[in-house]
Amino acid sequence: MSQKISVGILGATGAVGQRFVQLLEGHPWFELTHVYASERSVGKTYAEAAQWRMESALPKHIGAMPIAACEPTGELPRVVFSALDSSVATEVERAFADAGCAVVSNSSSYRMADDVPLIIPEVNPDHLDVIRAQASFKNGGFIVTNPNCTTVGLTMVLKPLHDAFGLKSVSVVSMQAASGAGYPGVPSLDLIDNVVPYIPGEEDKIYTEPNKLLGTLENESVHHNDIPIDATCNRVGVRDGHLEAVSISFKSPPKDSGEIIEALQSFCGVPQKNKLPSAPEAPIVYNEDAFRPQPILDRMNGGGMAVTVGRVKESRLFDISLTLLVHNTIRGAAGAAILNAELLKDQGLL
Amino acid sequence: MSQKISVGILGATGAVGQRFVQLLEGHPWFELTHVYASERSVGKTYAEAAQWRMESALPKHIGAMPIAACEPTGELPRVVFSALDSSVATEVERAFADAGCAVVSNSSSYRMADDVPLIIPEVNPDHLDVIRAQASFKNGGFIVTNPNCTTVGLTMVLKPLHDAFGLKSVSVVSMQAASGAGYPGVPSLDLIDNVVPYIPGEEDKIYTEPNKLLGTLENESVHHNDIPIDATCNRVGVRDGHLEAVSISFKSPPKDSGEIIEALQSFCGVPQKNKLPSAPEAPIVYNEDAFRPQPILDRMNGGGMAVTVGRVKESRLFDISLTLLVHNTIRGAAGAAILNAELLKDQGLL
Amino acid sequence: MSQKISVGILGATGAVGQRFVQLLEGHPWFELTHVYASERSVGKTYAEAAQWRMESALPKHIGAMPIAACEPTGELPRVVFSALDSSVATEVERAFADAGCAVVSNSSSYRMADDVPLIIPEVNPDHLDVIRAQASFKNGGFIVTNPNCTTVGLTMVLKPLHDAFGLKSVSVVSMQAASGAGYPGVPSLDLIDNVVPYIPGEEDKIYTEPNKLLGTLENESVHHNDIPIDATCNRVGVRDGHLEAVSISFKSPPKDSGEIIEALQSFCGVPQKNKLPSAPEAPIVYNEDAFRPQPILDRMNGGGMAVTVGRVKESRLFDISLTLLVHNTIRGAAGAAILNAELLKDQGLL
Amino acid sequence: MSQKISVGILGATGAVGQRFVQLLEGHPWFELTHVYASERSVGKTYAEAAQWRMESALPKHIGAMPIAACEPTGELPRVVFSALDSSVATEVERAFADAGCAVVSNSSSYRMADDVPLIIPEVNPDHLDVIRAQASFKNGGFIVTNPNCTTVGLTMVLKPLHDAFGLKSVSVVSMQAASGAGYPGVPSLDLIDNVVPYIPGEEDKIYTEPNKLLGTLENESVHHNDIPIDATCNRVGVRDGHLEAVSISFKSPPKDSGEIIEALQSFCGVPQKNKLPSAPEAPIVYNEDAFRPQPILDRMNGGGMAVTVGRVKESRLFDISLTLLVHNTIRGAAGAAILNAELLKDQGLL
Repeated sequence: MSQKISVGILGATGAVGQRFVQLLEGHPWFELTHVYASERSVGKTYAEAAQWRMESALPKHIGAMPIAACEPTGELPRVVFSALDSSVATEVERAFADAGCAVVSNSSSYRMADDVPLIIPEVNPDHLDVIRAQASFKNGGFIVTNPNCTTVGLTMVLKPLHDAFGLKSVSVVSMQAASGAGYPGVPSLDLIDNVVPYIPGEEDKIYTEPNKLLGTLENESVHHNDIPIDATCNRVGVRDGHLEAVSISFKSPPKDSGEIIEALQSFCGVPQKNKLPSAPEAPIVYNEDAFRPQPILDRMNGGGMAVTVGRVKESRLFDISLTLLVHNTIRGAAGAAILNAELLKDQGLL
Repeated sequence: MSQKISVGILGATGAVGQRFVQLLEGHPWFELTHVYASERSVGKTYAEAAQWRMESALPKHIGAMPIAACEPTGELPRVVFSALDSSVATEVERAFADAGCAVVSNSSSYRMADDVPLIIPEVNPDHLDVIRAQASFKNGGFIVTNPNCTTVGLTMVLKPLHDAFGLKSVSVVSMQAASGAGYPGVPSLDLIDNVVPYIPGEEDKIYTEPNKLLGTLENESVHHNDIPIDATCNRVGVRDGHLEAVSISFKSPPKDSGEIIEALQSFCGVPQKNKLPSAPEAPIVYNEDAFRPQPILDRMNGGGMAVTVGRVKESRLFDISLTLLVHNTIRGAAGAAILNAELLKDQGLL
Repeated sequence: MSQKISVGILGATGAVGQRFVQLLEGHPWFELTHVYASERSVGKTYAEAAQWRMESALPKHIGAMPIAACEPTGELPRVVFSALDSSVATEVERAFADAGCAVVSNSSSYRMADDVPLIIPEVNPDHLDVIRAQASFKNGGFIVTNPNCTTVGLTMVLKPLHDAFGLKSVSVVSMQAASGAGYPGVPSLDLIDNVVPYIPGEEDKIYTEPNKLLGTLENESVHHNDIPIDATCNRVGVRDGHLEAVSISFKSPPKDSGEIIEALQSFCGVPQKNKLPSAPEAPIVYNEDAFRPQPILDRMNGGGMAVTVGRVKESRLFDISLTLLVHNTIRGAAGAAILNAELLKDQGLL
Repeated sequence: MSQKISVGILGATGAVGQRFVQLLEGHPWFELTHVYASERSVGKTYAEAAQWRMESALPKHIGAMPIAACEPTGELPRVVFSALDSSVATEVERAFADAGCAVVSNSSSYRMADDVPLIIPEVNPDHLDVIRAQASFKNGGFIVTNPNCTTVGLTMVLKPLHDAFGLKSVSVVSMQAASGAGYPGVPSLDLIDNVVPYIPGEEDKIYTEPNKLLGTLENESVHHNDIPIDATCNRVGVRDGHLEAVSISFKSPPKDSGEIIEALQSFCGVPQKNKLPSAPEAPIVYNEDAFRPQPILDRMNGGGMAVTVGRVKESRLFDISLTLLVHNTIRGAAGAAILNAELLKDQGLL
């Protein structure tokens, strides 16, 4: 019998749900035992219910699994990954946590809740302590969240720079991939020969989530940071990989861009030190080629878990500017949650 | 016989050259009489030499025109539009000006020269005075230039805001169309499912050209402005239409975004007042829909000669931010030059 | 007061409905007086109800028109163009015809009905006679249809070849544009870096519709032809313009491809002879360049109403093969219906 | 010391050359020891000379290798893979064969030469015998080729059908990926919102190469088959993966499409039987979903070495039609050559 930790996926048939299935296949610590989806899928097998669209084949044993309703009944897995829409996540995630499950969520529902940690394992693993304030924690149930896809890439780059030079202000213009909107998501007529200069709700998340992530833990509570961040989000005709053109000013500016690059390249966190299974060797890959990063060439760096940075240059208004790339459905969604679960296991919380 | 002013095109067979041919067809003031191209095209007709790629058909009478070498020999047109690469433009444009032609150039060669006006007719028509300092002017020959495509859109939007509120700083992140690199230009493997985060030479032009355009005329010489502008330029998979996400701070900030919109919508210049043939009814079209401007829906506003602005919102770092769109090969290139020539005629300089 | 014929649009807010609005603006014979849409749009103006996505601006007077429900109540226009989904078209179109309107439909509901003519004005204008068999005809109401977008382009090319050489068999592989599925239509994740090799329902229409169009009128009834046609339909990442690779064998084969080209170029029908307003000068444009037709370069030939043909060559299995291009939302949909209405007027049926 | 067979790559810096490098990394039998490129790259390291564009990182030890000129001097590898343009391949490949190397070429130069085998290991491994007729063979040097990318996919599907039912005629319409033209290759302005209906030289190869591949070996010479094949080739906006819509008639038609599918699924050749390292588990993957194969979802089946087939259906003109997909730069180019080399080793010819 498997000694692995049993895990389930809430919203297993959608785009992020499928990415969870793909990334969990062959995972050394976790075994997928439950696939949950909406009522209309219950009674079907996963293969019947999901229109599988990953580039690798659906594993047969997963395809044969029966879909369960999103309710914490019967034997429950230790961990449920949530790929639910925020519209339904609030209620469902709470129910599973109350039933004793570790809910590791990619949904936005609880990200800003005071007693729910918003975690990037390289950035703020200590924030996990917040879960002890959750009522369900005494029964082993709790909710942990990862940030929005654009925030993940941004904050991973901001963290070492904040530690080294102190962030004063941050401006972001994103060029985001179609997969960020799920499937069917963005109509093709919106992206053939076109860019859409607005993504509802996205900019607000970039203003707030990094400030929680870069906040400080005080008495099992996170004191949010108050770095002013401005953002404009665009949708471009790319499948996967969000590009972000970022300008940054510092409280203690580095003397040159070499120090920026040094800070980025030497960044390393708990996932790297403790060799978590999904951790990339280096969380940030710096590429000196002025034409990089590019989605097609760089999004799979570190198995899709590394953020790639290029175009580090002096700015005429800020201290520096740079361009970063994050794989939005791996490091920005399913992979983010899986790394969070690995951190939970590593910290003895599973 | 035609009473129209005879015009020629230098570099007539390339992408911008073809756009000149298209836009000049049926022009009320100008008649295309000369098509100049490189040596290997001489002896062919225009139809034979140009791989016509405009969406409208090549007019037959233009197709039958013989290609001439880029030398000012034989009977010369009054005006030559230059679509030459900057590598050859320096010498050729000077030769035509010395021969008495009005050279209206889209090339970058002379844009920053002290005695050559860099003109957007709505922005700085008075700068035309600078041509009197050119030695060839006494013989009727001179060079007039229009800015880089990205600069045109940006500066048209900055001008009314500068007049109303005084520019303090400007940050630009562009998402530029493939046609900006000409044909063959950008390889398809660079833009299918991809964005390229760098365009060589582009950012430098954005730092300097707007400051010449927004400079003041003093004694037949332009005193450049010194507004700090920062820019990061990206290439996206769009045919035509450069999008620019712009953030701006002012010396005398408006009290709300309504004043910004009012300033943009009331902007109007010599082309509108004197009803130049290629002038759009309004140089700036404001669209309140948060999902606009989009290249596919807005690039042909004003026949491709209007700049479309949307997403005017408060910024957390600057006073405001907005997104603008300019058709890079019409208002940003061939149309820009034709409007400059119309201004010359309007001002009695042809 | 206008002497024009009043027309309405059923399903006016959708993609094809918008194209009707665009093409009817400034029409010399027809005046748009009624815009009909689904219940949820009733009570709004057209500007409020339609998410306008045409490349030209929505005319203000149309934007201000109130949306009416799809019921024949109140004062009715003489003609209603139908852009309805076939799911609702059956009932609604019949109701308007019964109420005395000329229903000129782009829907598939009645295309194959015995008493409803399926018309391409250049191909089978005589089939209009069939409407006399409709019960509503005595009150001035009737239904006329145009074919599926892919069929229109194909049959316009087949008609002159059938007349000249007699069709024996036809094989088609299509590469169809995204707009054929309407908006939102095809998800962008299906067309970025991808082709979808199947379009539900499309191939069946290609088997049957051309045989009705190429059928013969006998006693106010159409005797369908029985030319074997095979088809495979693919969706590609193109906005507008269906390409079709076609192979054809003949009963009396031409001696060379020159005869094919001659037959195509000399093709001319009632729309050209009677100078109908939307008729292209030539229904078929032949382009000898081996790299043509291309959607981006050729779809607007004849204002989007001409079919472009290229690559006419001998086949190793059929007599010849060729590639054709048809603008699927102009000649293949809204423009097709408008030309049908013009034919009705020309034939004294309005 | 390595016991692996030393191999080199001719034209190692180009698009196909890079794919060779990528696929050879970690190969169990072959070790890349020589990278050859044009004169202007000689003296540089591979990392300096190649603009690496694969989605996986360039291995550091390969990046450090010095580029050698395309001449058989110094210590030679046992095998050279050729990714040369046909313009230079003729001379260079002959020189390396004369020097005793096994030249395994993706170039078209010698494909149709009588004494050069054109090989797909699953289709015609026996044709290798032809190399014995090459003068250089006595010294261990010879040339072996793989077919054009479109031909590979087509012929792998035709082979089991030919064996089972006897091919009478074959019609192909291809939708080919941009990478087939190399880098820079096809301009982006040709593929954004567009399809190009012609690929020079491609159709001729489809007429002839499958007939050599499906020919019979007689006295160390290949007797070409004479199956009539017709083809029309299109370029679409896809990065990798050629789709082919194929119609086929048979001498002994199957009674239904089930027999076709059975023949395709049971196809298996020497690479599968002898477990060659690059061999896919099954050379042909059949997908019953009507919307498959799709480039994005299926091109990496079998590591890019399997051909995916879908849409098997009765044709109204042929016996059946189907759609196939082949990864053009893996199974259609570099992977094809590597599998050929593995076959050579397996057959004792290295």
